[in-house]
Amino acid sequence: MNGSQTENRKMLSELSCEELKSFYSCELKRLEDYRAKGLKLDMSRGKPGPEQLDLSNEMLTHCLDGDHISENGVDCRNYGVLDGIYEAKRLFMPMIGVGRYEIIIGGNSSLQLMYDTIARAMLLGVKGSPKPWSMCKRVKWLCPAPGYDRHFAICEAFGIEMITVPMRSDGPDMDMVERLVSEDEDIKGIWCVPMYANPTGAVYSDEVVRRFAALKPKAPDFRIFWDNAYCVHHLTEERVTILNILEECKKTGSQDMPLIFASTSKISFPGGGISAIGASEENIEFMKQQMSFQIIGYDKLNQLRHARFFKDFDGILRQMDKHRAILKPKFDLVISALEGELRPLGIGDWSNPKGGYFVSYNGPRGTAKRIVSLCADAGVKLTSAGAAFPYGIDPEDSNIRIAPTFPSLEELDAAMKVFCTAARVAACEALLNK
Amino acid sequence: MNGSQTENRKMLSELSCEELKSFYSCELKRLEDYRAKGLKLDMSRGKPGPEQLDLSNEMLTHCLDGDHISENGVDCRNYGVLDGIYEAKRLFMPMIGVGRYEIIIGGNSSLQLMYDTIARAMLLGVKGSPKPWSMCKRVKWLCPAPGYDRHFAICEAFGIEMITVPMRSDGPDMDMVERLVSEDEDIKGIWCVPMYANPTGAVYSDEVVRRFAALKPKAPDFRIFWDNAYCVHHLTEERVTILNILEECKKTGSQDMPLIFASTSKISFPGGGISAIGASEENIEFMKQQMSFQIIGYDKLNQLRHARFFKDFDGILRQMDKHRAILKPKFDLVISALEGELRPLGIGDWSNPKGGYFVSYNGPRGTAKRIVSLCADAGVKLTSAGAAFPYGIDPEDSNIRIAPTFPSLEELDAAMKVFCTAARVAACEALLNK
Repeated sequence: MNGSQTENRKMLSELSCEELKSFYSCELKRLEDYRAKGLKLDMSRGKPGPEQLDLSNEMLTHCLDGDHISENGVDCRNYGVLDGIYEAKRLFMPMIGVGRYEIIIGGNSSLQLMYDTIARAMLLGVKGSPKPWSMCKRVKWLCPAPGYDRHFAICEAFGIEMITVPMRSDGPDMDMVERLVSEDEDIKGIWCVPMYANPTGAVYSDEVVRRFAALKPKAPDFRIFWDNAYCVHHLTEERVTILNILEECKKTGSQDMPLIFASTSKISFPGGGISAIGASEENIEFMKQQMSFQIIGYDKLNQLRHARFFKDFDGILRQMDKHRAILKPKFDLVISALEGELRPLGIGDWSNPKGGYFVSYNGPRGTAKRIVSLCADAGVKLTSAGAAFPYGIDPEDSNIRIAPTFPSLEELDAAMKVFCTAARVAACEALLNK
Repeated sequence: MNGSQTENRKMLSELSCEELKSFYSCELKRLEDYRAKGLKLDMSRGKPGPEQLDLSNEMLTHCLDGDHISENGVDCRNYGVLDGIYEAKRLFMPMIGVGRYEIIIGGNSSLQLMYDTIARAMLLGVKGSPKPWSMCKRVKWLCPAPGYDRHFAICEAFGIEMITVPMRSDGPDMDMVERLVSEDEDIKGIWCVPMYANPTGAVYSDEVVRRFAALKPKAPDFRIFWDNAYCVHHLTEERVTILNILEECKKTGSQDMPLIFASTSKISFPGGGISAIGASEENIEFMKQQMSFQIIGYDKLNQLRHARFFKDFDGILRQMDKHRAILKPKFDLVISALEGELRPLGIGDWSNPKGGYFVSYNGPRGTAKRIVSLCADAGVKLTSAGAAFPYGIDPEDSNIRIAPTFPSLEELDAAMKVFCTAARVAACEALLNK
């Protein structure tokens, strides 16, 4: 089945029971045929493809030829400089919108920076904490959903109670966020992916950012975890920007509220990039003092390597254009498969993101788990159904995160054929079982 | 003053009051002369010198030329492999005496691995913990002293109560260790640097290791933090070895007790090395599960770089021979300065280590702080007096950790002249104030 074949079809819901059963058995047969091909494709994680990684290979060879000294005279091979070398800070400062005293450069994982920040908050508290969070009777967290599964997993690991906040096209439901944080002092934080959100691709509107800055949380040590993971990861020619959360918070006197995270995982190498945390100068000083017990300094040679390879923020933007050239056709293929194979049948809905790493698919209620399982049977691995929700539970069982970046176009084409067939099968079953 | 001049001198304690005062004013004058030189020397930390770092420069250029795939097919540029690639494990396995399923490769800092291990224990517990340590009424820790200041600082950061255990030439006072851990279930761990201990250079005897393996702690989740930071850092031709703590613990059925840490910080680069944690397979599985919430994987490109540069454990041993060739003359200079300038006067005592990064000086009671302060005045920075003791308090105020590795021989010569003069001044003052 392809776009042209489906154009003259009726919507699935308009089929008679007979027609539906016949359509269903065709689709089942089709899935069986795919299964016989013994595919082994992975669309489960937001992982760059090899072609994207090749873009940064030069970084690994000549960036450190015989010169390991940073601009201000630090031998990057040796101990020290907990907050990172200045030229690495300079790469991130315009990216996340902070000044030179408002940033710490981390290791190869911003997830680690986020986890560690919460671990320290639990054991020691953040700046302004009346006591360590682990000494509070309970700690709660706002989780806009669909969202990033690894964010939610951190909360789950630490026994932090997650409260789901619906995710809109311009950010979380701010009425709910405002009400909850102002009423409940157990709520210590919120997860945000403000640009090209994981998985919906939503971009926070100016109004949403301003409402975040204007929050008046009951907890004196409430923190906005602003994971700007996709801040330069555009898929269109438009370089979308959002309001600067730290600057907005300075205007409201809440500059200690946001903690901004980013990394080069999807700019250079997921396995060997660098990360950053941005925050008010006071927050940074406080965190540095806490972090000094954990580590003498993150890998400065890798910081220097990145600084020399990218040179400046423009260098990063140029690199992102190259990533876009590789990724855009993959996203186009996914959208066109969904539009061609599901839209005419009236099955499901999906995001068409301007950036980021995912397409978020919402099928008919109760079909997500079935689709993921059918795809797995046919050799196509998807993110678990429900993964984008706190505790892994999608109340509608309808959301699936499609990650099109890692497979080749050819593989992606095969995988999307399987996906759309599975979606049709599941949609039929949902109708037949009504 | 030098060795030959002091040979005919009396011991300081044998001088008459008149002689002592005259000697004292000479030494004060000498110190003043050093001060006028405006020295700026740092012997405060165990930091490799630039010449040592040069030994690994090649690692930074051609180890990853066009091939980023590990032996078993992992693209090290991408996400994944939380426990590290096998060829990196293979470097560490013989170094810390563990098998392939008994190791996790970390980032550039073993301190971070140790801190994180305790942070996880506090928040989540270790394998076999009845509850997270932070939920215990109190947590206590055994701290052989003199020891490593950053170990003690981790305890202090987490509010863990430190109990000082005297350090002997063959390890901690095991009578005391055995008694305390068997009696007090609040005691959850002990810090050990079993080879070329920081700062005394002590090497744990076979008997001490066996007594560790035979411990019967009252706490079911007691852990030995076996920081084998200097396991291949020999200063003599003798490659000292110690008994394998994990193997000894397997014999007693206590294989979950030891957690072994090491890094290449002083093998390749302090700022860009790799680290490892070794433990029983069950401990490793437990920790990997916990760590999966924190990080997707440490820097595999740096792991591959190290594996390709060193090739195997023999490659590491050859590298350590080169380090030794650079370091031995520095340690010889320190020992010879102390022997020449202090021994004939009967001032103090010191270690003459067969490996590691420090000389441990013990002056007359009450002189350590004064020496450090006099040296600082004269432009020679030493580790703070007391740093090698829990809470930074040396009850005798006599111990100073000398770190001779970073300065050049010429600088070290100047620094030791200042140190010995300061030691004489302080010794005179101690006698005059009696």
